[in-house]
Amino acid sequence: MITVRDIWRDLEKIRAESPLIHNITNYVVMNSTANALLSIGASPVMAHAADEVEEMAGLASALVINIGTLSGPWIEAMFKAAGAARRKGIPIVLDPVGAGATGLRTKTALRLMDENGPAIIRGNGSEILALGQAKGETKGVDSRHGAEEALDAARAISKKYGCVVSVSGAVDIIVDGERTIRTANGHPLMPRVTGLGCAATALTGAFAAVNRSPFRAAAHAMAVMGIAGEIAAEKAAGPGSFQVHFLDALYVLGEDDIGSRLKVESV
Amino acid sequence: MITVRDIWRDLEKIRAESPLIHNITNYVVMNSTANALLSIGASPVMAHAADEVEEMAGLASALVINIGTLSGPWIEAMFKAAGAARRKGIPIVLDPVGAGATGLRTKTALRLMDENGPAIIRGNGSEILALGQAKGETKGVDSRHGAEEALDAARAISKKYGCVVSVSGAVDIIVDGERTIRTANGHPLMPRVTGLGCAATALTGAFAAVNRSPFRAAAHAMAVMGIAGEIAAEKAAGPGSFQVHFLDALYVLGEDDIGSRLKVESV
Amino acid sequence: MITVRDIWRDLEKIRAESPLIHNITNYVVMNSTANALLSIGASPVMAHAADEVEEMAGLASALVINIGTLSGPWIEAMFKAAGAARRKGIPIVLDPVGAGATGLRTKTALRLMDENGPAIIRGNGSEILALGQAKGETKGVDSRHGAEEALDAARAISKKYGCVVSVSGAVDIIVDGERTIRTANGHPLMPRVTGLGCAATALTGAFAAVNRSPFRAAAHAMAVMGIAGEIAAEKAAGPGSFQVHFLDALYVLGEDDIGSRLKVESV
Repeated sequence: MITVRDIWRDLEKIRAESPLIHNITNYVVMNSTANALLSIGASPVMAHAADEVEEMAGLASALVINIGTLSGPWIEAMFKAAGAARRKGIPIVLDPVGAGATGLRTKTALRLMDENGPAIIRGNGSEILALGQAKGETKGVDSRHGAEEALDAARAISKKYGCVVSVSGAVDIIVDGERTIRTANGHPLMPRVTGLGCAATALTGAFAAVNRSPFRAAAHAMAVMGIAGEIAAEKAAGPGSFQVHFLDALYVLGEDDIGSRLKVESV
Repeated sequence: MITVRDIWRDLEKIRAESPLIHNITNYVVMNSTANALLSIGASPVMAHAADEVEEMAGLASALVINIGTLSGPWIEAMFKAAGAARRKGIPIVLDPVGAGATGLRTKTALRLMDENGPAIIRGNGSEILALGQAKGETKGVDSRHGAEEALDAARAISKKYGCVVSVSGAVDIIVDGERTIRTANGHPLMPRVTGLGCAATALTGAFAAVNRSPFRAAAHAMAVMGIAGEIAAEKAAGPGSFQVHFLDALYVLGEDDIGSRLKVESV
Repeated sequence: MITVRDIWRDLEKIRAESPLIHNITNYVVMNSTANALLSIGASPVMAHAADEVEEMAGLASALVINIGTLSGPWIEAMFKAAGAARRKGIPIVLDPVGAGATGLRTKTALRLMDENGPAIIRGNGSEILALGQAKGETKGVDSRHGAEEALDAARAISKKYGCVVSVSGAVDIIVDGERTIRTANGHPLMPRVTGLGCAATALTGAFAAVNRSPFRAAAHAMAVMGIAGEIAAEKAAGPGSFQVHFLDALYVLGEDDIGSRLKVESV
């Protein structure tokens, strides 16, 4: 079960400790991801050179790997950074952006899962279906599948890899073996802004840096994303102003906002 | 002739079908381009690895190539993606950002034109002059030349390559052989925001994905850009708020907005 | 001593001449940096391919090198561009982002300083301490050290390399040998937005393009950053709206804004 009090305690910890989150992420969202992390109180760093990722991961409290714009040198750096994170014992969060769309992405995501023991895999329904070897017909990086359709795949992945799987959708599903949490905050404008899924992954990293339970960290992050999204959507006239209000909402989010809005269900 | 009804029909189609637009574009504008495409209702994907661009282009309804931050591996990927697009028969839109500023850019743009048959080339006056071998004194990536000065170059390129040439400026000129459309929407704040030219190119890709006439698609895109720009400028206090309102305007743009604002002239 | 009149004269020059600023900068801030330069009236270009940087630097009025997301090919391009800038006699501004955090960054920054004679080095306290071989405990790319702690290191670097050192903080310190200027504008929201330090560096490049004194150029840039930051913060509800208002403030900044807000102290 996740509670308002637990989410709030994590959020206060992030704001007080400002954990360093090392991101190897795609070009499209580097700026918006860094701003989401800064707005919630964490300290982001983006570094992808094979020559420095081990050192950087060694300074960090969590490592976020996002395969949204892959290329050879970046894949090499992802494995090096993941190795350093494993040795240091910090959580790795993997976002398999576009898995199922191209062989390079599916293969790279699966190799990262096989060799690096991510604590949390966070993707959309299509991506999780593709990784679960189910029929994940993917169209680019958007999801054609709701989170619920990917539930079996998420469970299978969670058991096989011993990790948490967090599937975003109108209702988000966070799976850890047999345990399941559903969070139902959010707004239909969110998929109309690029990089919000990637921001969810980065925030998952921030929560994992301050909470030893990857299951709770993943659920807390999705709840906060959805609640900040609702607040932003109420003030927004479209995707442009949504982004602005979303960062503002992360920055000012209070315990009352969480208490009055949280929609969660655990099994 | 382009009409309010035709622009509106394309816009409704983009919103209904959400065509996947594969962009190989520059680092500066990846985020803002993706957001412009999402705001208008299309589905953007950015992918540039030689290992996956053919597969990604094979999923897409249009390919947008923008040479704004070139490097060797990206050039290779551009040619691979363009080959896949040609084989699949989807339109290629080329933005020769900074052609004329450096030999690498001019040469790469000309090679892409020679070998890949873009349906539409969309640039500013200086870039089109440079590609037309006329004297295009270029200063970085801004234009020192109005679209009108590039009219002859645009016509020559259009005839030589059998493609549409769309030249942005205070008045945009869209050329297809002897046919010419001028659209005169827009606002002087627009060149003070980075990546709006690149967004125009990406939206041209979205219109080309739903309209079989590249000539009309290019003109519809420039009209919509200009109209959304006018709406945004009326609400903006500067380039920062302009960007926010621009995305919002693309998202809510209605047939009435187009009907009351469209300034177009065909020859 | 810096004066309102001198800052204003530089700002008018930037707006009138729109100097081309060639940036080799990190992926995270390319968009926001380009927009800051456009908002103040300069003309930004981002180009990083070894094949074209010399040509591009040859068109520019200043070169800004920012090591925020390093990799081998970019380092090569930085040295090539710096060589061309030196030959042309335009000022080079170096931002040693994350120096002290990894060996690659510290080493690259020091090599750039040794071989290329930057006119201005602009960093935060931790970075300047790291470059001064003092104990610069760095955490990612944020600063754990105030500018004042880095004063001795800044003086030593300034003397050794014959350059201006501009250290950002709650109070910014600009050092040229024995001379020191402190500017005290700004707002605590600024470190909660990614890339504002990088924007300060880019604006320093714009001021250096129109003012032959790197010392004054650096101080003018920090004053304008801080004043625009104050104006933005008064209108902002958080880091999201801050960014929007910041660009708007740069765009409309008037002599009166500078006159009524400037907080500066020279020694």
